[in-house]
Amino acid sequence: MGRWEPNARGRMRHAALELFAERGFEQTTAAEIAERAGVTERTFFRHFTDKREVLFAGTEQLQETMVERLGEASVARPLDAVVAAIADAASSIDLDLARPRSAVINANPSLLEREALKMVSLARAAAETLRERGVPDPAATLAAESGVAVFRAAFEVWVGDPEPTRLADRIQEALGQLRATLG
Amino acid sequence: MGRWEPNARGRMRHAALELFAERGFEQTTAAEIAERAGVTERTFFRHFTDKREVLFAGTEQLQETMVERLGEASVARPLDAVVAAIADAASSIDLDLARPRSAVINANPSLLEREALKMVSLARAAAETLRERGVPDPAATLAAESGVAVFRAAFEVWVGDPEPTRLADRIQEALGQLRATLG
Repeated sequence: MGRWEPNARGRMRHAALELFAERGFEQTTAAEIAERAGVTERTFFRHFTDKREVLFAGTEQLQETMVERLGEASVARPLDAVVAAIADAASSIDLDLARPRSAVINANPSLLEREALKMVSLARAAAETLRERGVPDPAATLAAESGVAVFRAAFEVWVGDPEPTRLADRIQEALGQLRATLG
Repeated sequence: MGRWEPNARGRMRHAALELFAERGFEQTTAAEIAERAGVTERTFFRHFTDKREVLFAGTEQLQETMVERLGEASVARPLDAVVAAIADAASSIDLDLARPRSAVINANPSLLEREALKMVSLARAAAETLRERGVPDPAATLAAESGVAVFRAAFEVWVGDPEPTRLADRIQEALGQLRATLG
C-alpha cells in the first residue's frame, strides 16, 4: 500500500457519502466514487469489496478495536466492560461522517439489514471475548447484546442531536436508562 | 383453505425438519418436503414461500402474538412487559420441534443470518409497540432489545437442556441474570 493511501481511503469514504446523498445509494457506482475521490477504480477495489462496504468498513474496525479493549479490561462487571470497550472503540467516529452515513442507511432497507447483521456480529464478538475471559453463558450473551443495544440507542440519539454532542455522554445516558428500565 | 390444512401445515413442518436432519438443508427440496408430508407441491407453496420459510413461520407467529399481548399489557415496567409478552407468545413452542430446528439453523450460516434478522424484527416490533403505548425512546428500544436478548439467551439454554424444562422458567432466570449483570 502506497504511503498516500490512508488519505485516499478517507477521500473515498467522503466521496461515497457525498454521492449517495446526491444521487441515492442505488444510482451511484464504484467508478463514480473512485473518480470523485481522484483514484483509479483499481485502487477502489483494493480497499473495498463493493460500494456497500464503504459504509461498513468503519464497523469492522469498531469490532476489532472493541475486542482488543475487552480482551484487556476487567470483566468483573461484564455489561460495564462491554459498554466501555465499545465507547472506547467508537470514540474515533467522526460525527460529520456518521450523520450522512445514517441517512443513507436509514433510506435503504437492504443497508438497514446489513447494519443489523453487523450489530449482531459485534454482539457475538463481545460475547465470545467475555467467554474467553471466563464469563459463563448466558451472562456473557446478555451482557454483550445489552451492551450493543445501549450503543445503538446512544448512537441514534447522537447522530440526531441538532448540536454536536459527545457520543461517550450519550452512551452513559443510555446505560443509565437501561438500569432504570430494569430497576 | 380446506379444513384439513392446519394439520397439513404441521405435517409439512415435521417433514421438513426430518428431511433437513437426514439430508441437510441445502440438499432438501420443497417437492421432497411435500411428498413426505403427503401433500402436493402446490399446497406446499400455498403455505410457504420456500423451504427456508418453513423454519421461520413460527417466528412470524411469535411476533404477531407478542405485539398483541404487549398492546394490552401494562407498560409501566417496559422490559418486564416485553419479556412477559414474548414468554406468553412463546409458550406454545413445541420443544420437539424447537430442538431439530435449532440444530438445522446452527449448522447453516445463511439460516443463522436469517434468524438474527428475525430477532431484529421482533425487537423493532416490540419497540414500536412500546412507543405507541407512550414509552419514549431510547427506553423503548433498550427495553425491546434487552427483552429479545433475554428471550434468545433463555431459548438457547432451553433447547440445550438434556431433560425437557419449561421455557418460561428459563426466561425468568435469564431476566434475573440480566438484572445481576446490571447490578
